[in-house]
Amino acid sequence: MAWQSPKGTRDFFPADLSALQHVEKSWRSASINAGFDEIEGPMFEHLDLYTVKSGDGIVSELFSFRRDNGDTDYALRPEFTPTLARMAAAKGRSLAVPTKWFGIPNHFRAERPQRGRLREFKQWNVDMLGIDSPSADAEVIATAIRALADLGLTSEDIVVRISHRDVVAKMLLDGGLKEAQLQVALGLLDKREKMPADVFTEKVSAAGIDPSVFAPFDNDTEASHEDLSTLLHELKQWNIDKWCKFDFSIVRGLAYYTGIVFEIHESGGNERAIAGGGRYDRLIEMFGGPSIPAVGFGMGDVVLSLVLRDKGLLGDGNDLLPTPEVFVISASDEGDSAISETVALLRNANLHTRRSYKATKNVGKLLTEAANSNARFAIILGEELSRGEYVVKNLDTKDQVTLQRANLIEHLKS
Amino acid sequence: MAWQSPKGTRDFFPADLSALQHVEKSWRSASINAGFDEIEGPMFEHLDLYTVKSGDGIVSELFSFRRDNGDTDYALRPEFTPTLARMAAAKGRSLAVPTKWFGIPNHFRAERPQRGRLREFKQWNVDMLGIDSPSADAEVIATAIRALADLGLTSEDIVVRISHRDVVAKMLLDGGLKEAQLQVALGLLDKREKMPADVFTEKVSAAGIDPSVFAPFDNDTEASHEDLSTLLHELKQWNIDKWCKFDFSIVRGLAYYTGIVFEIHESGGNERAIAGGGRYDRLIEMFGGPSIPAVGFGMGDVVLSLVLRDKGLLGDGNDLLPTPEVFVISASDEGDSAISETVALLRNANLHTRRSYKATKNVGKLLTEAANSNARFAIILGEELSRGEYVVKNLDTKDQVTLQRANLIEHLKS
Repeated sequence: MAWQSPKGTRDFFPADLSALQHVEKSWRSASINAGFDEIEGPMFEHLDLYTVKSGDGIVSELFSFRRDNGDTDYALRPEFTPTLARMAAAKGRSLAVPTKWFGIPNHFRAERPQRGRLREFKQWNVDMLGIDSPSADAEVIATAIRALADLGLTSEDIVVRISHRDVVAKMLLDGGLKEAQLQVALGLLDKREKMPADVFTEKVSAAGIDPSVFAPFDNDTEASHEDLSTLLHELKQWNIDKWCKFDFSIVRGLAYYTGIVFEIHESGGNERAIAGGGRYDRLIEMFGGPSIPAVGFGMGDVVLSLVLRDKGLLGDGNDLLPTPEVFVISASDEGDSAISETVALLRNANLHTRRSYKATKNVGKLLTEAANSNARFAIILGEELSRGEYVVKNLDTKDQVTLQRANLIEHLKS
Repeated sequence: MAWQSPKGTRDFFPADLSALQHVEKSWRSASINAGFDEIEGPMFEHLDLYTVKSGDGIVSELFSFRRDNGDTDYALRPEFTPTLARMAAAKGRSLAVPTKWFGIPNHFRAERPQRGRLREFKQWNVDMLGIDSPSADAEVIATAIRALADLGLTSEDIVVRISHRDVVAKMLLDGGLKEAQLQVALGLLDKREKMPADVFTEKVSAAGIDPSVFAPFDNDTEASHEDLSTLLHELKQWNIDKWCKFDFSIVRGLAYYTGIVFEIHESGGNERAIAGGGRYDRLIEMFGGPSIPAVGFGMGDVVLSLVLRDKGLLGDGNDLLPTPEVFVISASDEGDSAISETVALLRNANLHTRRSYKATKNVGKLLTEAANSNARFAIILGEELSRGEYVVKNLDTKDQVTLQRANLIEHLKS
């Protein structure tokens, strides 16, 4: 009987997990450095939390289930913003201004798995509540860029494509789109890059929209907006303007965005978006909280890891595993009797200590095992134990010394 | 409309999460120190993975859902051992001996929430595969104790209650229990402490079992087993025997345990078990892997946090939050223009930097805000900026210096 992980999910063996943790470490450190406080919420929420505001796009993608005598529907969380909005609303008037939160939750989407898109993934969420000015948008974008730079990416590798919902809407309406078709047209524009041109034209026509309203998005445009001017000024202050460009073909799929929106892409355009975000000034209020402006983004681990691997910035994770300081081997019967006690002594001194569990007394073989563990030192428990002595070999320099127990820890920590 | 987290789940605001992370840090550091490698698996698995071996007890406690055109049933993971067994089996003959894995996964149980028992919780799992000897059991117990000691608990606070399935079975059968009633009797014994004595007697009688078979478990017993003698010897080598005692009323509920089993309890007996574990020598094989002995335990965050809080070892988490190194305030129009650029400079120098977002120029109020953030330094951006100078105030000593930009970072890092 062959058991497998569910379709679109992953088993993280040690090297896989250390690669993910390497990414998470950059996310967390960029967040804390920028004064964001970490939060977490439930892995599932009441289904209503998603149906009430995310638009119909999200519903078919949910893993949902009914419990409690069939009274209550739950769904695995497909994104963090509704949880964050609920938590902010729960604080009510006691919510600090600004509130700067980040998190690294798991998310779940019941889609067909494809490159860059899994059914379970990690997502870094960074949100800033209470600041109306595009300076907050610049600060969250700067935080994203800091993590990407920490992972080794440069402004050659990455582009932050920035847009504004109002500008896009105006461009469409100026081109002759009917107001009533706006949400549909925004949804189509959002998905345009992910399909061949003829399929896009077909879908547009099927929706009763004149394809020519999308023509302005193929070219650079002179469109402007006060928010974007302020944002550009701030991006220069942060010295990250070279990572960014305005691109009005970006609209973001989710219904709750209200102003500036952005996506972070690999410059070659070969992958899905690395991150997406924007302003959602009306969402906290929608969940019963105070009226408070907000801006944030989400960055998943899947596309980012593809980009990092492609650029040689994330190996197979083996080189990221913790390595022991000491590896203990027994070369005698006295050694066998003393090994647990010796390992306990070392671990209690905060030394990452491994040992051989092999029955052999062949010191050559055992030292090979010690070297393969990448330990810095090997301790050989041999006949010297009867004199209270331990043989310590530095596995880098091959130097070997014989030490009294009282000097052991000091030597290993030097 | 008031939105709440689902029953039995938790919202982790920053202080709550920092308390959880404090516990996780001790778990992770004890694991790595003892040479365990971290793994993670999917948050949900095929439902069959649980129904095949955990006994019927687990099924009613699962959050399950059907997807993919109704073809596939999944369940949120209620424990980690089946995932670990599946992952070990997938490695087949390439699985290292021993394999030492740990993880800190979330788990889900669709039970009625009660003290110490939630519907979603974190659980530290530590498992050692490939070592038949009770020395492995001692090593995982020592790893558990190391984390608890790191959190401030002592052998006065905590007791590891150790038992053996074979001993318990023999005691029951010697007392007259029928072989066919063994699994039912073990299940009842496992739950005995959680119910009043008369309810227990009622349930036992209802199962057609003579209550007198449980009498030996009320007293100390002379029962012995070679595994337990070896284990006791090893616990002494690890110098943790004072944390442990044999207690044959411990059986563990899950069907897959095969030998030594143990639970860790608060000494006063006031809470549910902090941790539980034991040998499961036949499980990897059951999932299609090689025949390989295994021992491990799980320790949830909920009961442990109750015990730590009760003993004053885990405050409200506020004192565990990261504190900024620098807090930047603007006392002039020049300051307003320079603040983003200054904050960027500091963060890029790896200094945890926060700032005021207030419009006021009242330096007293702004310095109070800086002090409330627990920052070490405040930088005041004032008129001195026109001479390229920054006013830096040490918030601990109240010393204030005026520095050129070139000397700023060095001073803040000193």
